[in-house]
Amino acid sequence: MKPNNETLELLNRHTSVRQFQDKPVSDEQLAAIIGAGQMASTSSNVQAYTVIAVTEPDLKAQLSKLSGNQAYIEQCPVFLVWCADLYRLREISGPHLQGAASYEGSTENLIVATVDVSLAAQNAAVAAESLGLGIVYIGGVRNNIAELSELLGLPDLVYPVFGMCLGYPAGVNGIRPRLPLQAVLHHNGYQADASVEQVKVYDEVTRDYMRERTGGQKDTPWSEMMAGRLAQPSRLQMKEFLLQKGFMQK
Amino acid sequence: MKPNNETLELLNRHTSVRQFQDKPVSDEQLAAIIGAGQMASTSSNVQAYTVIAVTEPDLKAQLSKLSGNQAYIEQCPVFLVWCADLYRLREISGPHLQGAASYEGSTENLIVATVDVSLAAQNAAVAAESLGLGIVYIGGVRNNIAELSELLGLPDLVYPVFGMCLGYPAGVNGIRPRLPLQAVLHHNGYQADASVEQVKVYDEVTRDYMRERTGGQKDTPWSEMMAGRLAQPSRLQMKEFLLQKGFMQK
Repeated sequence: MKPNNETLELLNRHTSVRQFQDKPVSDEQLAAIIGAGQMASTSSNVQAYTVIAVTEPDLKAQLSKLSGNQAYIEQCPVFLVWCADLYRLREISGPHLQGAASYEGSTENLIVATVDVSLAAQNAAVAAESLGLGIVYIGGVRNNIAELSELLGLPDLVYPVFGMCLGYPAGVNGIRPRLPLQAVLHHNGYQADASVEQVKVYDEVTRDYMRERTGGQKDTPWSEMMAGRLAQPSRLQMKEFLLQKGFMQK
Repeated sequence: MKPNNETLELLNRHTSVRQFQDKPVSDEQLAAIIGAGQMASTSSNVQAYTVIAVTEPDLKAQLSKLSGNQAYIEQCPVFLVWCADLYRLREISGPHLQGAASYEGSTENLIVATVDVSLAAQNAAVAAESLGLGIVYIGGVRNNIAELSELLGLPDLVYPVFGMCLGYPAGVNGIRPRLPLQAVLHHNGYQADASVEQVKVYDEVTRDYMRERTGGQKDTPWSEMMAGRLAQPSRLQMKEFLLQKGFMQK
């Protein structure tokens, strides 16, 4: 029998929300959402993240402009900018280290902080949806990452990993089908054939989905969309930016 | 009124599980857990991850050895190795690109894949806990990342981000208190003072927690534990490994 419960149903009906009602998110809701985010696992309890809740209309407008002019960033009542944060750790460790060498700027710690913020954000997303709110992740905060970081006053060793629009949904999208389970779940070793062969199945699934969504106007298979994406020289400033901010020093 | 519901309660009672019953996880449960993971948001639907379910006792024993000899890796019925995966995208894009330049190896795409796998894993963790199972994330898979990758046959453009023990809990830990909300939730800009000042409060909270957990034997404040962690030259091979595997080329 297929396992099921209220939480699984919630997870399985997730869709991104890009249209929001003109209705505020309360402070209590925001606290419950971020609080649930904090309960996610964190590497050795480092909690290497900070989330900035943006509610000022002018600031949201500027962030929207820097993130690809996505209207929903302005429209949503709360725009969350989730940041990987090793600054806090360095600052509070300083007095204990007394000048000893420290490794906050290692590539390992960039990964730790990026994972930490992602786990917290996903818990927060689930919490928000459990309260009837909707979200969409915004990778566009990395489009103009230096300017956006300056606008938010992010210090060294902090970078914006993604944004998240939060609010009451106005309209709900259809659920987008994912890769076949066999493509992403392997057993006792990496199965390169399964990883690639299953995409042929998925290409047909995505063509059908696109046809249905666009009234027959589009039917691009997933592999072709992905090729288009890989061919784009997207956000190539990331490496230099991260190095300048003190990440990936080792 | 503080918002609450079944899912919020589940998220808020999370603790890592490091002792497991000798009781299997069924294929249906595993499919439901990973399937719920797949429903997490993914950057432009790239789904840049693969998870390897390890159940063979010998292989688990070898992975445990490479990951810091953590007994629960051997003890849990299923050990999941969550991998960031840009290999699949490159392989399936090849025929469409016909030799055109592609950017799968950019630092931006390393971040995309690392975030993607983390969001999926956290959804899977929540799904597992909703079914009465327990989990613990294992950063130790990065201890000997090259050897572990070879053991699992991971191709270029794939790296193990973290492991996850999965099984029925034998005993439950106390809930570990997190940083005060004001430390991690800022408003309309980064608040460096809040980020650091709140740690003084948290240092006392963590001292009390440690005293209680150790029967008064230990009372190290959080900031001192973090300083100890930053002073460790931990996993400094990560940068070179990721470069060799084709990541961070740009």
